Parts: sequence; structure tokens; C-alpha cells
Amino acid sequence: MNTSVPVAILGPTGYTGLELLELLASHPRMHAAYLASARPEPIDITREFPRLCDRLDSTTPALTKPIDHNAIARDCKLAFLCLPHDAAMAHTPPLLQRGVKVVDLSAAYRIKDPATYHSAYAHHHTDLNNLAHAVYGLPELNRAAIRSATLVANPGCYPTAAALALAPFVRAGLIEPGTIVINAASGVSGAGREPKPNTTLVEAGDNFSTYALGTHRHEPEIEQTLANITPAGGGKPGVLFLPHLLPIERGILETITATPSAAAATMDQHALTNVLTEAYRSEPFVVVRSEAPTLRDVQRTNRVHLCVKLLPAKGARPARLVIVAAIDNLTKGASGQALQNANIVLGLDEHLGLR
Amino acid sequence: MNTSVPVAILGPTGYTGLELLELLASHPRMHAAYLASARPEPIDITREFPRLCDRLDSTTPALTKPIDHNAIARDCKLAFLCLPHDAAMAHTPPLLQRGVKVVDLSAAYRIKDPATYHSAYAHHHTDLNNLAHAVYGLPELNRAAIRSATLVANPGCYPTAAALALAPFVRAGLIEPGTIVINAASGVSGAGREPKPNTTLVEAGDNFSTYALGTHRHEPEIEQTLANITPAGGGKPGVLFLPHLLPIERGILETITATPSAAAATMDQHALTNVLTEAYRSEPFVVVRSEAPTLRDVQRTNRVHLCVKLLPAKGARPARLVIVAAIDNLTKGASGQALQNANIVLGLDEHLGLR
Amino acid sequence: MNTSVPVAILGPTGYTGLELLELLASHPRMHAAYLASARPEPIDITREFPRLCDRLDSTTPALTKPIDHNAIARDCKLAFLCLPHDAAMAHTPPLLQRGVKVVDLSAAYRIKDPATYHSAYAHHHTDLNNLAHAVYGLPELNRAAIRSATLVANPGCYPTAAALALAPFVRAGLIEPGTIVINAASGVSGAGREPKPNTTLVEAGDNFSTYALGTHRHEPEIEQTLANITPAGGGKPGVLFLPHLLPIERGILETITATPSAAAATMDQHALTNVLTEAYRSEPFVVVRSEAPTLRDVQRTNRVHLCVKLLPAKGARPARLVIVAAIDNLTKGASGQALQNANIVLGLDEHLGLR
Amino acid sequence: MNTSVPVAILGPTGYTGLELLELLASHPRMHAAYLASARPEPIDITREFPRLCDRLDSTTPALTKPIDHNAIARDCKLAFLCLPHDAAMAHTPPLLQRGVKVVDLSAAYRIKDPATYHSAYAHHHTDLNNLAHAVYGLPELNRAAIRSATLVANPGCYPTAAALALAPFVRAGLIEPGTIVINAASGVSGAGREPKPNTTLVEAGDNFSTYALGTHRHEPEIEQTLANITPAGGGKPGVLFLPHLLPIERGILETITATPSAAAATMDQHALTNVLTEAYRSEPFVVVRSEAPTLRDVQRTNRVHLCVKLLPAKGARPARLVIVAAIDNLTKGASGQALQNANIVLGLDEHLGLR
Repeated sequence: MNTSVPVAILGPTGYTGLELLELLASHPRMHAAYLASARPEPIDITREFPRLCDRLDSTTPALTKPIDHNAIARDCKLAFLCLPHDAAMAHTPPLLQRGVKVVDLSAAYRIKDPATYHSAYAHHHTDLNNLAHAVYGLPELNRAAIRSATLVANPGCYPTAAALALAPFVRAGLIEPGTIVINAASGVSGAGREPKPNTTLVEAGDNFSTYALGTHRHEPEIEQTLANITPAGGGKPGVLFLPHLLPIERGILETITATPSAAAATMDQHALTNVLTEAYRSEPFVVVRSEAPTLRDVQRTNRVHLCVKLLPAKGARPARLVIVAAIDNLTKGASGQALQNANIVLGLDEHLGLR
Repeated sequence: MNTSVPVAILGPTGYTGLELLELLASHPRMHAAYLASARPEPIDITREFPRLCDRLDSTTPALTKPIDHNAIARDCKLAFLCLPHDAAMAHTPPLLQRGVKVVDLSAAYRIKDPATYHSAYAHHHTDLNNLAHAVYGLPELNRAAIRSATLVANPGCYPTAAALALAPFVRAGLIEPGTIVINAASGVSGAGREPKPNTTLVEAGDNFSTYALGTHRHEPEIEQTLANITPAGGGKPGVLFLPHLLPIERGILETITATPSAAAATMDQHALTNVLTEAYRSEPFVVVRSEAPTLRDVQRTNRVHLCVKLLPAKGARPARLVIVAAIDNLTKGASGQALQNANIVLGLDEHLGLR
Repeated sequence: MNTSVPVAILGPTGYTGLELLELLASHPRMHAAYLASARPEPIDITREFPRLCDRLDSTTPALTKPIDHNAIARDCKLAFLCLPHDAAMAHTPPLLQRGVKVVDLSAAYRIKDPATYHSAYAHHHTDLNNLAHAVYGLPELNRAAIRSATLVANPGCYPTAAALALAPFVRAGLIEPGTIVINAASGVSGAGREPKPNTTLVEAGDNFSTYALGTHRHEPEIEQTLANITPAGGGKPGVLFLPHLLPIERGILETITATPSAAAATMDQHALTNVLTEAYRSEPFVVVRSEAPTLRDVQRTNRVHLCVKLLPAKGARPARLVIVAAIDNLTKGASGQALQNANIVLGLDEHLGLR
Repeated sequence: MNTSVPVAILGPTGYTGLELLELLASHPRMHAAYLASARPEPIDITREFPRLCDRLDSTTPALTKPIDHNAIARDCKLAFLCLPHDAAMAHTPPLLQRGVKVVDLSAAYRIKDPATYHSAYAHHHTDLNNLAHAVYGLPELNRAAIRSATLVANPGCYPTAAALALAPFVRAGLIEPGTIVINAASGVSGAGREPKPNTTLVEAGDNFSTYALGTHRHEPEIEQTLANITPAGGGKPGVLFLPHLLPIERGILETITATPSAAAATMDQHALTNVLTEAYRSEPFVVVRSEAPTLRDVQRTNRVHLCVKLLPAKGARPARLVIVAAIDNLTKGASGQALQNANIVLGLDEHLGLR
């Protein structure tokens, strides 16, 4: 008989926590056994999220408890950290020491270079020991390392879509370094559950806007991923990342432009689509299509849908690749991918509990 | 005492017609005196658009009539054509012959080169005579010519935002030809009033998607405008236009990237913003800002809000300009601009009836 | 080892078909083995609904086939009919004759009285034989009959919420007959996938409206259900049903008012909530709450959330019950409930494949 | 030559303040001459609301100032109070003393009975003197009194729609007292500009919910208005008010049910519609229609659209009137009506600056 693995969620009252609870409610081999909140008073989780009423595992506690590392280690094999990055750095070491594997959904362990981290997050890294061995949890690029990881740094939402869209082309040297422009748009849930002046329905609804042009924290994360797979001798990629805020709850669409390199000069549309198809042939959550995806195609799934278009040169305009990627920012861009990573770390079927 | 100019609307039952009727309802010097529909039966205009109940001018007819050129010429000084481009070409010559000035909201007279028109619209131009003297109705670039025009080709929605964002930089040779990429997103009203499978609330709502990547009809219109103002010796611009569909009714946001030319190499952020400020110093409907605009800033106004950001070089990435432009696609992108053009053609204050 | 039951979907290209395919994709014991369309040409189902890419059961055919009763009977044990009501009446008899059980999502077999059916649907019933034994598929009221049914009439979306909200009170004689007013609001997906003038994003988005005041087809269906459970001697209930259209995709909220009967005069808030709690104590998909639910609490689940409030008499105003019910119109209001019915008919666990 | 009246806005940084500024921007005879904020530091109004850039009157100050009664009295003839009710009570007396007329958009002076006010707002009234002579600013019911008022209590948003829908029937004794149920739904802007957990796009978007069932502060305001016009001998009306929150910015739709009185027993649909038509024959902002209005029909106008339907008795169900009313909550429900009141108070054309 198949047993179920008990896991903890630290910070279950934000949107990534809610998404994890929803996903775990349908997971046949994993269940939330400990819900830990930084808030001192117990929080009734179905009063907080009434849509979970009667849907949680019978062994999932009704109330949150304090973040007690010993209790978590006693009850759980793995912990999902849905906390701010400084809190994640505080709780990861004691959990790892007690043998609890950690999937961290914050940015704490994503960026390997402490100086880059500091520059992006205006915060000194306080856990360099664990940063050194943390594994970047993008299974499609990094599955083998995740299998043996004790600490998984779950990727950012925008970087997930960008890396999956660009990796096959960068790895094969098909893109001119420095020409990558990532036009990205995200649903408002990416800004978290805390009400903000720009996330009310009146301000964010019926609206569309750019923000953090060229200064977004995800830009160095994307560059790190691409640098890691750039062929020897290839220029260090410097991407231009242009995020936008969509008037919807969920979903990220990225429309990425880049100039094909000389190596790609003779490739036609078919050959370019094949680059994606071959790269992701056996991936359970990647769909390569000939038509550009929409957000509706991926919302509430753990899938990324990808499409590449070759637009020919015209007048002064050089030929360009346009790669379109769509994910759900809370699923493949956060909690779904965290669960995918947990499945891998725990030796379960990677697709369990995911759609 | 100030008199009011009687005008006709051909095709008042689409969204540009409705917008014109709304605008005219507050115009102190112009009124709709003839509503002409291609549909044979009279259409009760307030039954079609109940929000116009009791708001139309007392002299505006309650019912549409057939498109009768003599009657229009008898009753009206100017006609707004809110018709498909082939119908616009059929009705423009007889109206002009009868002394009625025409502001055409279709694409019929926008593109000067018949071959380019044919290639974009898959339709042979049938009124080359009037095409020759039609004036492209972008007042900020073309006001003097509009003043003496009898036929104004009202610009497309996307091209309006793109031209106003790019013109000052292209004219001054500050942008590397061929590097312009226009990421644009429009509300669904841009697709017209006819229900389509991709414009229902279920499909278009809570969604975001690209379409017509590199094949949109507005791409050559933008290129024509930029070519006309490119300094002698400058390369012919070839833009890459990437339109997206937003899950909202109204508004266009364009996030435009381009590589600064050598001439711009020494310009800083302040100097680049000044390029916009100087170009539009006395324009009543252009707002230059230091922060990127949102759609909420311009919806239901005839304004364009503009912002330029200089993003420095980084690694392999060259420096880039990012220009953000926001308009309402039905107002400055269509009917508001048509009314602005009509005000100019008729010698009225340009801002009358517009916000 | 557990086997999987092959089922057919007739009409898989509408929203109820899509919802069934999504639900079946996660069902461990049932799979779509035949997709039948009235359209003659084969339809590629993942091209029609790209979000199903790679998510359908490996044995689910990629293309629709014609509605061939023999082939369906050969391949499937049960058929979901997602067809117009006249087509449902045409295909039900041959399927039943061939031993295929039918869950019909149309209105064809919901109303037992042919005259009432004719008056509501302006259509003569053409299959009175099967109408006689069809079982109304509301498991919470009717589970035993569904278990042995060969033909299940899946309830309408509004009637599902209304019946579950009202049944415990009507059965116990706690409501004054004739005082029930059902204020209901539904997402636009209830209007089907076919684009209509009032379902475009521009018309339906950012809007709210009533329709079919006192003339909606679901009014007699609700009355039939309530009449069946009215205690002997109780007056025949005559409900007033006031539907509204919400600017969202999914969900039905009903705010139902009624005057408590003399039998309820001494009941307080606690006792009234208990009426719901007791009635649905062992129901897997009914959640009784002390606070009114929102649509967000139930969207994309098969749950109904219920709440009753006792509002005391005030001045000339008598005391009133307000019952609030929330469901997802495509799930508990259509395809989820159809799957729940199929689970029951096939002897499977009732909650399989449902959340 | 026509002069323009200088007015003050106290509290210009909320949504009613913004709406007033937008409306004044098009008003030919009134302009904002003083913008007063309770916040000590000056607020740059176009930085706060960029859509006002270049659209304010040239004499409107760019920055807010403190609430200085002498300065306001020196510069302005009338003040719009867009403040919380306690602040409104603090600032009204000194402004009136200095000869400034006041249109108060808060609830401070709406309810004449201090006990009822206290019970609804949990706040003791601190300005009973001015409460005594304040005029309830619903021009369609109260125009003569408004003309000579120095203090106008601008009605609540829900009460505006409810009163206009019900007044003609209550006044004529056509409705059974105690049977009125007001099902109402409002856009989120009614909750103000301050971000709240339930007004974020993620929570309020794609959602629909009831709130404050039977306990909303607007219920006694509606009852007061109806009591004032109930014919002698008619029972004191006790309404049941059921508010809902719509996933949109603007608009209120009320679907009101009531049992016709004996006096209405012989009236048919035509006669009932005539009750509305006659009552509002010369009203500039009331539109009586034979079909139920939608929010789209009234958004961003100062209009109320009304429709009455007679639904016949059926089984145990008595005949019922259904009255549907639609307004924009920020315009006719707040700032538009405030401007209408100011026009009246100042002796200007009532429709100036309004659509």
C-alpha cells in the first residue's frame, strides 16, 4: 500500500500557501501535516480560505501553529517555505539540521552570487553555507541535481517562463548575446495577498501598466540561468526585462524577442520549432506549439506552453525570433513547481498532484 | 452667437460611431445631423445604444437613414466615415464631389503606396485619385496639412500611439534604424462590435495573448509615418510590431524598445525626456511624464501620455531606450482624433468636445 | 487492479464538454473513449481547446467522430450528452436501447410534465417514453433513484443552487408558500460558447444586468423540484426567479428571500442554520456556513456553499429568511454534477474526479 | 460674459474627490479654487491622479493646502466635503458661519433622527444645529428646498437609486408597505480608495458576494426617504436591503421587488410604466425605459435609468412589481449628484458639467 508523505507549509496564509493547500488536497501521496505561521495566534485555515472547507486532508490541522523546528522535524519530511526571503534564511538552517528537506519559494537561495543578491534585494545574505549547495529548482534544466538536493530554491515566476523559453536556443548558441528583450505580463496575484494601493480592483482592474523597467529583481535571476548554459566562448547574456501588470488574477505571458545568431541563419521556422520540441520531448509539463499560447491555455495547470516564430528581415530590420511562453504564475511559477520539486526530492512520480 | 456645424456619421452603430455620438453630445459647436447606415431598415439609435437616451442633440435624428449622398450634402458640412475600408472608398468620392469634407476612420486612405495597401489589406485600392490628396490625420505631426484638407485619413489606433512615441526620436536621428520593437496591447473594443469567437467575455476575459505577430496591418502604416520623418540619409526604419489582446474594453499601451544611435550616445535621461517635452510643448493632447503611464491615466480622454526611459548597457546588452505610450484606442486612437481632425478642418478650436 | 470505465461525450466542443474533459483528465476510474460531434468533419480537440494538450487520457481519441450509436455502444458504458435539448431527445432512445446509460446535460428530461416543458421551451417533447423513467440527477435529493437509473436528467445550473438552498426549509414546512424570491446571478459561461451580441467582453464585461425577469426556463424546473418535496397540505410553491448576468466567466450566487411560516416563528438563527447542517450532514459536496459564501469560495469545485440568515421584523416589514447559495455553474451546475451522477450510476465512489 | 464660480473640495484625494475634479474640468461655470486635505503635507494632485494632467482649470492649484476655513471662505462660494462623517461635522459649522455653502458627500447630515443616525453609524452626532436645517439633496424629490439650502446632505449611492425607483409608487400608495426587498449590487469604488483585504483585484475580481445583509447603513436612509413621502395613513415602510459587491469599478444596479397594493390591483404594465414616466417627465437625468437597464447604460453619466415590470400571480405566488434602477455610484450616486446640487444651490443651469 502506498503511504503518504507528511509535509509542512511555513506561511500558508499567502497565495502560494493557498495554492499549495489546494494542490495537496488532490495529491495521493503527500499531505500537509503541519501549518506554521509567523503570526503568534492560531489561524483557522478554512476561515481564512473558505474554499478549502471540507477539502483538506483529514490529517491536516485546522489551525496554524508557531514555527517550531523540532515539532516540524518530528512530524514532517519536507517543508515548503512560503515566507519572505529574510525569514526563509532564518528557518532553513535549523530545518536542514534536523533532517527536514526544504523547498524554498522565496528568493533567498536563487541567486548564487551574494553580491548580485545584495544588489537585487538590498539585503545581505545571512546563510551563505546553505546557499552554496542549494539547487535551483527548475526540473527541466536541473532534474538530476534536484533529485539529491536537501534544499531546493524554487525559481521566480517570470524566470521560470523566461528560462524555459530561452534555454534551448541559448544552449545551442542560436541567439545573439545581448539582443534578448523579455516583454512580460503577470496577473496581480504575483504581487502577493497584502492589499496595496496599486493592487485594488479599482486601480489594477481595467488597467495595464509597466513597472520596474530594467530594475526588476528577476532580471539577474534570468541572466544567471542563461549564463549557466551559455556555450563556452559565447558572450555573457544581458537581458532586458520589461514587466507589466495585467488586470487579472493569474498567468504570465512573455513575448521574447532576440536576433538569431549566425549559427541560426540557415534555420527555417520548422527547424526552430524543432529546437523546442527536441529539448522538451520527454518533459511532462512542457507543451510546444505552432501557435502562440494564451493565458487561458495554462491557468491552473503546471504547464508551460511555448511557441517560436521566425520573423524575416525587412528593410533595416534584421530577422528576429519571437518566443512566446505562457504559465500560471501561482502554479508552474510558484507552488506547482514547488510541488513538482518536492515530488522529485521525495522520489515520487513527478506529476503527482499536478495537472 | 456661435452656430453649430451639422455633420454626418456613416456607420453610427459600431463602436467608433457610438464614441463619436457620445463625444458630439458634449460638443458645443458641432452636432450629428445625419446618421447613415448601410443596413436598409432604419435603426433606432437609442434602442441600439441606450446610454445615449436623452443625451443626443435635439436636432440629431432618432433613426438612421440610407446613405444618400445628396441628402448628406444638403444637411451636412462634413462626414465621419465609420465604415469598412471598401465601403469608405465607395462613398468618399461622391461626398467630396458634393462638397462634403470627409474624415475617414477606416484604413482606406492611410497608406499612400497602393502596392503596400494591397499587400496589407488584400484589397485593390479603388479610389487612387482621392488617395493622392488624402491627408494623414495625425495633428501633432501634420496639423497644417489637415487645416486645408478635404479628405482626412484618420490614423489607426496602434499607429497613433507608436508615431507619437517615436516621431521626436526618429526625426532627430536618435534611434538606430531597424532596432525598433513595438510591444503593444489593446483592449477588445479594437476588434469592433461584431461578436467573434475570440472576443467573448469567456475567451477574452481573464486572458492575455499575442496575435498577428509580424503580420499586423498597422505595421506598414507605422513604417510609412516614420519613413516620412526620417532625416535624409537615415536608414529606412523597419519596425517589429507585436500586438497583444488585453482583457479589457479600452486602451492601448505600447512599450517600445530601440537602440540609441551614435547621436544619442551622450544624452542622459534628462536630455531624452526633453526631446519629448520640446516636441510636444504646445500640444493640447500630449502629456510627457517622468513615470510610465497606465491605461487608467488616459481612458476616455483624447490624451496620449508618453515617457522615455534610458536603460544603460549591461554585459552583452547595449543601452536601450524604452518609450511607453498610452492612449484610449476609441478616443485618441479613433473617434476622439477624428473629432480633433474635424475641429481643425472646420476651423474650430481644436480641443472642443474633447477631454 | 482497478479498471477504468470508458464513456462517451456527445458534444465535447461546448463549455460543458470542455469541463467534462478537464474533469475526466484527473479521474482515476473513468475515461473519455469516444468524442462525438454533430459536425460532420473531425474536430481536433486539443486544437479546439489547447489547454487540454497532453492532458487527455492516452486512450482518448484526438479527433471527434460522428454520432454513431453502435460504435458508442461498442466502446462505452455511459454517454454524457452535451447537446441541445432536441438533439438529446433524438440520441437518447437509440443509446438506451443499445444498453448505454445516459447522463443528459440538456433540459430534455428535466421537466416531467410535457405541457410545462412545451410552455417553457416552445418545443414538443418527442421522447415521452424515456421522459417517464428519467431520474432528476440532484444526488442530494435523489441519490437512491440515481443509483438504479439508466437515464439521468442533469439539473439546470440555477435550479441546482436554488433546490439545495431551499429544499430543507420547504420539506420542513418552514417557508410561507408563495413568498420565495430568488435573486440569482451567473457568470457568462452559462450562455454557452457561441458568441452572442451580449456575451462579448465589451458588452458583458464591466457590466451587470437582469434578463428574462419572471420568464426564465429554469423557474418551472425549480418549482417542480420544490413541489415534489412540499409536505402534504402545503401550498404549491410559486417562486419568483430574477436572473442577472455577471461580468465573469463562472459561478452562480443566489440570494433567496422568503417569509418564514408559522412553524418557523419560534426558530432562532441557530436553529435555522441547523436545518441546513442536519439536512446535509453526510453530503460530500455541501458546505454549510455561518457567513455568506462568495463565488471565489466555490469556483472550479463541485461544492455548493450555503448560509441562512434570519432578519427580524422591522416596522411594516415581516421577518425574513435570506438564504445564500454559491456554486460553479459549469461544475456543480453542469459537468461536475454530471460526473457525480455518472459515478453514482456506475457504482464508483461519488467523489472521484471531483473537488 | 459668464463668470465661473470658485469652489473648494475638502478631501480631493479619494474617489469622490477625483470624480469631482474630472467633472469640474468640463464645467463651464464652476472651477476648483481650493483643494484642502487633512493630510499636513501638500499633495501634488496630478501626481496623485495622473489622468488629470493638463486637464484641470488653469486657476486650480496644483497642490493641496490645509483645511483653513478663512482661506476657503475668502476664495470660494461653496465647498464640497469629501470627508469621513465625523470630519464633515467638524468642518461644516465654521464654513457655514463664514458664508460658504456646503455640499456634504458624507453621511453626516443625511439622517434627521439623531438616534437612528447613532444606531446606524455608531457615532454621536456633534452638529445637531445644522442637522436641523440640512436639506437632503435628491433634486428629483426635493429641488425647491435645495435651491434655498446652505447645507446640502448629498444622498448615499444605494439610497439614490432606491428612492428614485420607489418614490413614485410609494407616493401613490401602489405598494404594500413591508414587502419591499431591494437587491442591490455595487462596483468596488463604493468602498473607497483605501486598499482593503476584500477590495484587491484578486479577492474582488472574478467574484460576487453579499455583505451586510439587513445591517447596511443605507437601509435607514432609504426608509427615511420613503417615510417622508408615504401618504397619510399608509404604513411606515420597512425595507429589506441586500447589498452585493460586483467585480467592477463602477455602477449600482438595484432589482427591487414589492407586492402591489389594492390600489394597484387593476393597473396593467402600461399604467405602471406611466407612473414612472409621469413622475419624471421633466427631469433631466431620469430615463424611464420599457426594458431593464444595464450598468453600461449609465456608467460615467449622471443618469438614472428606470424600468418597472409587472409579474403576474402564479400558484401561491402573488403578483409582484419588479423595479430595476441603474446609476453610476460615483456620479449620480455621489459626485455627479453633488455637482447637480451645487448647480442648483448656485442658481446655475442644473445640467452644467454633467452628462
